[in-house]
Amino acid sequence: MPQGRVSTTPDDGLTTRQRRNRPLLVVHTGAMKGKSTAAFGMALRGWNQGWSIGVFQFVKSAKWKVGEEEAFRALGEVHERTGQGGPVEWHKMGSGWSWSRKAGTETDHAADAAEGWAEIRRRIEREEHQVYVLDEFTYPLKWGWIDVDEVVSVLTARTGRQHVIVTGRDAPQALVDAADLVMETTKVKHPMDAGQKGQRGIEW
Amino acid sequence: MPQGRVSTTPDDGLTTRQRRNRPLLVVHTGAMKGKSTAAFGMALRGWNQGWSIGVFQFVKSAKWKVGEEEAFRALGEVHERTGQGGPVEWHKMGSGWSWSRKAGTETDHAADAAEGWAEIRRRIEREEHQVYVLDEFTYPLKWGWIDVDEVVSVLTARTGRQHVIVTGRDAPQALVDAADLVMETTKVKHPMDAGQKGQRGIEW
Repeated sequence: MPQGRVSTTPDDGLTTRQRRNRPLLVVHTGAMKGKSTAAFGMALRGWNQGWSIGVFQFVKSAKWKVGEEEAFRALGEVHERTGQGGPVEWHKMGSGWSWSRKAGTETDHAADAAEGWAEIRRRIEREEHQVYVLDEFTYPLKWGWIDVDEVVSVLTARTGRQHVIVTGRDAPQALVDAADLVMETTKVKHPMDAGQKGQRGIEW
Repeated sequence: MPQGRVSTTPDDGLTTRQRRNRPLLVVHTGAMKGKSTAAFGMALRGWNQGWSIGVFQFVKSAKWKVGEEEAFRALGEVHERTGQGGPVEWHKMGSGWSWSRKAGTETDHAADAAEGWAEIRRRIEREEHQVYVLDEFTYPLKWGWIDVDEVVSVLTARTGRQHVIVTGRDAPQALVDAADLVMETTKVKHPMDAGQKGQRGIEW
């Protein structure tokens, strides 16, 4: 539920309505689980608005599959079949992005990450989606595979109405500085502390 | 992505598999947005496992509608039509719970909350769902409308495989103590600080 009130009214020449509809750059960071699940939960809200949802997962293996992927693919089919909600695209880095199937080449994670970002950049410049979930995107930034300054520059210069949600631990400071909303998940208690390993339906 | 390893192996007489599949009591608390969205994101994973999802929103008005509601209703219909995923029920307190339409009576929020909890208790005792999202449930606990000790006692005594996710600020300590997983959302930055009000697709 939206709580609280705005504490200041900025002198930015925008009406309340214009300011309200300004697209957001959102960062979910912190050490605890909940970063990606909260991003996908937010994308559900966008889907319900009829917005185009683009998910880009910077994961090591294309075999890695979270339950949200099947649920969003089902919602994408609902949209195609009935017009309800918005269209959904879900791409994973893993062994190559789904839009560029390179057969037989050795997997180079750094190159794959850079290729993923290049495509996201093109889509942002074409205003292709209204919601971008860049899942686990902080890692290629942290490892220097993708240039943080370029990312911040593309994201802050984006036109139209495009919300971008970035997830992952250790978000770079330049990205945090550029973001409108930064949420950090903190661990109070985790089943692993009590010797319980991850389980299906909960961790994936 | 599940990260980290268990630090201890408890002497609880359970096999790793039994311990892994132990159902969880999860609490999402803290001052920042993301508590409910992360709970609904987690419920997506359960839906994909074919589990029965029961959402119970302790909200002041039944008119209050988050985008997740439509998305989950759509997923429930996907299940009915194709068998994919699990069944979904979504109930809101507001002007009375959907299973008990009291016409013409004055709205008594405390009584509505207590009635909601009584129904949830019955369902838990019947093992009706595999995932319960008790959204904004900490508030009726905080206001004394529902007895915390009774809740903790019912939740810790629950049988079978029922995951329970509770969201809301200021989770009572007894609930935190009983929980397996407690996630706190912390505000690093929020658009309201910059004078931007909530917007559709993001806040609801």
